[in-house]
Amino acid sequence: MAVHSIYFPDLGPIPGGIVTIGGEEAHHAVRVKRLAAGDTARLCNGRGLIALARIVDSRKVRAEWQVGLDVMEVAEVAPLRPRLTVLGAAPKGERLEAMVEGLSQVGAAAWAPLASQHTVVEPKQGKLDRLARIVVESMKQCGRAWLLETQELVEFGAALSRAEQIVLADASGVPYRRTGAAAVSLLIGPEGGWSEHELAAARGAGVLVARFGVHTMRTETAAVVAAAVVMESEREAG
Amino acid sequence: MAVHSIYFPDLGPIPGGIVTIGGEEAHHAVRVKRLAAGDTARLCNGRGLIALARIVDSRKVRAEWQVGLDVMEVAEVAPLRPRLTVLGAAPKGERLEAMVEGLSQVGAAAWAPLASQHTVVEPKQGKLDRLARIVVESMKQCGRAWLLETQELVEFGAALSRAEQIVLADASGVPYRRTGAAAVSLLIGPEGGWSEHELAAARGAGVLVARFGVHTMRTETAAVVAAAVVMESEREAG
Repeated sequence: MAVHSIYFPDLGPIPGGIVTIGGEEAHHAVRVKRLAAGDTARLCNGRGLIALARIVDSRKVRAEWQVGLDVMEVAEVAPLRPRLTVLGAAPKGERLEAMVEGLSQVGAAAWAPLASQHTVVEPKQGKLDRLARIVVESMKQCGRAWLLETQELVEFGAALSRAEQIVLADASGVPYRRTGAAAVSLLIGPEGGWSEHELAAARGAGVLVARFGVHTMRTETAAVVAAAVVMESEREAG
Repeated sequence: MAVHSIYFPDLGPIPGGIVTIGGEEAHHAVRVKRLAAGDTARLCNGRGLIALARIVDSRKVRAEWQVGLDVMEVAEVAPLRPRLTVLGAAPKGERLEAMVEGLSQVGAAAWAPLASQHTVVEPKQGKLDRLARIVVESMKQCGRAWLLETQELVEFGAALSRAEQIVLADASGVPYRRTGAAAVSLLIGPEGGWSEHELAAARGAGVLVARFGVHTMRTETAAVVAAAVVMESEREAG
């Protein structure tokens, strides 16, 4: 059985102290996972710090569970290379959540909604709050040390002028090949596809247009599959 | 706007005749897509035949819509190479459906539930019926010419002795490299992972143990991502 992971944003780099966690994470550890004094847990701050900690006590303070932990060991985990930012249309309903969870698992660093000609959907605040919970749960489940960042809407034109390797996914492109870039922006088209104007602008800007399969994928499948292929291809010789 | 696709299992290789479709496909074409005489549609039989057809008439016979089409052109599309069969645990609920839809989009040829030590879940008939509809819808949507086959439960031991390139996905493996095989069986572990016994058996049988990312993926994400990486890697030099 894997050690239980607890998200603790305030985790510092120095071991040896006692920290107290509360809220949903403490409730889950005590009431669902049944952790008690003496048990070991893994703390992560979502920004590269991972700690092994031993539970020293748990108590209910008013309506809230609190868990005290002795931080035994702290390690700093470097972000994955390349730093991959996926920019794409937000699919509807649960498909956005599935996409973000998938991107987290394959090691993307960030996701941002992209405003393109065939889509301008920007996730509402309630949806973003749900995504924030999903990236925490996914980080704990898949063993990431860094939270997947969800960023603000990016306009298509601005996406083309980002100062890093830009890859636009489209059936008209070439199979993806390793670029060696330290940072990659991966642009995923909406269900309706890119407009001719967008494709021309991308090619004009010298963007790498790549395809990631022979069939038409739903946008959330395309995002996760293309992100995985980029991460795996870049890792090969890395 | 893409030409509407209609699944018609009885499509034959010879153009020139009039065919009649009924059932859900006819209802959808007439009532949802509003196709009428003179419109063009794409017929596919799910086994490699694709036809361009023109609607000659539509009529309601008792409670059922029927559409007559003039088959103008028939093409035969070869199956993708390699022929990829994914064997893995059936995740619960809608995650099985999402997985099968993803496998269809990335070009797997077949999926079969795999009985391993940490899982023996076999999808029930109702679930299999729903999967059958999903593979048809996905074929039409993503432009496949072949239906993803859903096959019967395979025991782990039998999976290891299949007469083709066998790839077992596990974090302990090497990054996937092109094998050049014409047919690949890809074994995906359940949420609980492979047992030590299973890993030893696989290595003993000379199976290629490969990893497809640095994080722990949910089984349905692992299946789709690994299938995509295999298909893309094998296509590279193909």
